[in-house]
Amino acid sequence: MLLILDYLGVAVFAATGALAASRRNLDLVAFGFFASVTGIGGGTLRDMMLGRLPVFWVQEPSYIAVCLAMALLVWFVAERLASRLTILLWADAIGMAGFAVMGAAVALSAGVGHGPAILMGVMTATFGGIIRDVIGGEPSVLLKKEIYVTAALAGSALYVGLSFFGVTLWPAATIGAGTAFVIRGGAIRYGWTLPTHTLPPRA
Amino acid sequence: MLLILDYLGVAVFAATGALAASRRNLDLVAFGFFASVTGIGGGTLRDMMLGRLPVFWVQEPSYIAVCLAMALLVWFVAERLASRLTILLWADAIGMAGFAVMGAAVALSAGVGHGPAILMGVMTATFGGIIRDVIGGEPSVLLKKEIYVTAALAGSALYVGLSFFGVTLWPAATIGAGTAFVIRGGAIRYGWTLPTHTLPPRA
Amino acid sequence: MLLILDYLGVAVFAATGALAASRRNLDLVAFGFFASVTGIGGGTLRDMMLGRLPVFWVQEPSYIAVCLAMALLVWFVAERLASRLTILLWADAIGMAGFAVMGAAVALSAGVGHGPAILMGVMTATFGGIIRDVIGGEPSVLLKKEIYVTAALAGSALYVGLSFFGVTLWPAATIGAGTAFVIRGGAIRYGWTLPTHTLPPRA
Repeated sequence: MLLILDYLGVAVFAATGALAASRRNLDLVAFGFFASVTGIGGGTLRDMMLGRLPVFWVQEPSYIAVCLAMALLVWFVAERLASRLTILLWADAIGMAGFAVMGAAVALSAGVGHGPAILMGVMTATFGGIIRDVIGGEPSVLLKKEIYVTAALAGSALYVGLSFFGVTLWPAATIGAGTAFVIRGGAIRYGWTLPTHTLPPRA
Repeated sequence: MLLILDYLGVAVFAATGALAASRRNLDLVAFGFFASVTGIGGGTLRDMMLGRLPVFWVQEPSYIAVCLAMALLVWFVAERLASRLTILLWADAIGMAGFAVMGAAVALSAGVGHGPAILMGVMTATFGGIIRDVIGGEPSVLLKKEIYVTAALAGSALYVGLSFFGVTLWPAATIGAGTAFVIRGGAIRYGWTLPTHTLPPRA
Repeated sequence: MLLILDYLGVAVFAATGALAASRRNLDLVAFGFFASVTGIGGGTLRDMMLGRLPVFWVQEPSYIAVCLAMALLVWFVAERLASRLTILLWADAIGMAGFAVMGAAVALSAGVGHGPAILMGVMTATFGGIIRDVIGGEPSVLLKKEIYVTAALAGSALYVGLSFFGVTLWPAATIGAGTAFVIRGGAIRYGWTLPTHTLPPRA
């Protein structure tokens, strides 16, 4: 189950990396590079911080194969997409939801406390997208007004909390990832925001 | 003593992260995320490079609590600040000074040689700010003309040098961090610079 | 032999870091910082992902000395250069070629499988330049139309493939790094590209 969430997260994040490459009109090898770095970025940071070394894709190369397959898929499909940015945002939402739970779950299984495990989930969920946006020269998705970090936090915290109260893996992961996705989906679809300061920007 | 410097560094860097979120008019959860990533970023990189894994905030979650407290503080205080950028710069200077010494001290205590320990101090001192600026989409503070890296280098090298000559922890750390702060403070207040090339830029 | 490739890669990447500092008219200490971070960045990421900790330059500080020497060299030479950008691009090509082989070779010697070793080579080869461009506020070299990742991939994959078929270190490394350099050189000199989509950008 967790393995499915993990591959799913890697695959859809990889797709967003390839879509970013597509929006820049790069070549197929660059598609593969962006897909790989985006797909495995969050999990790589998680493993480096936890000390699970070498990182996961070194021990299980099929993750790289998944990233390259997504790059190839996007390469052939991109021109038929009405809006690559819309697809990118929704795929990113799926990946973020999956990784928020996965990051927290891996941290818990490595003996990490509840608080740090939640933060680990949030960082795993956001870091792939940060790398993609930084390398791609796009403004980070975290700077948009629409809810993003909150969705990752909700998913990660829900999973950790449900696990703490004895809920088993499947329902806890489903509820956690589902909640993260619904919140982020609402932000994409209906522009959900949280209250912010009304200060003039950049003072 | 070092522990105080460390928490101080984390707290003020966290505040600069929250101020960066404030300048972007983000929501409270984003404040917490920016504060956490900026506050623990430098120490996380230091621990990952030294192999002190899992990284420090996994083993001591109170660091995250400090970051979240600073985010909350900035959230309620930001609108009363005349210039968030000025506060950000001065808090960044305090954090940089504390981390320049902390990074070097942790490296020395891990058995690292003097030269690498100095560089470790400089990288720990600068990395939190780099992450903050990169995620926040701001030009890096390292690109300004005013002295920055030099201050971190002076603090880190002074601490390592004084330790080498047998000076005990407290005076060495105070002199190191104090010097770094004074130099960076002069750069902020009086625009101190070092000589640069007078080449036309970007050729 | 590998040691020579490694020091060569660090030195020329350090030079590109110093050139980036020069193009921003920064001071000598910033030259040293940019040179160090760019020179050791790729290898540092490689070591952190493989778990070879502490990272290489902590155990062998002469790498830092090489970076600082290159910073000093660029400081005195930069004003006589007709175009710093051209030199930067060619030095970057040499460093990328060296690190594509080095990253893969270190990964193989650490017992990593062939697929992950190739990706490790590509990431080691590109990461120093990514850090340099991100900190320096330049658009990443990966976003240019001219071939870049493909050259690193060719060098890394050739080295791994030749090693797999029993070719000894020297010829395999020479062919791998040479091929990567020739491909990237052709991209710089003649604008070599791979086919890309002809989609409108940024949709």
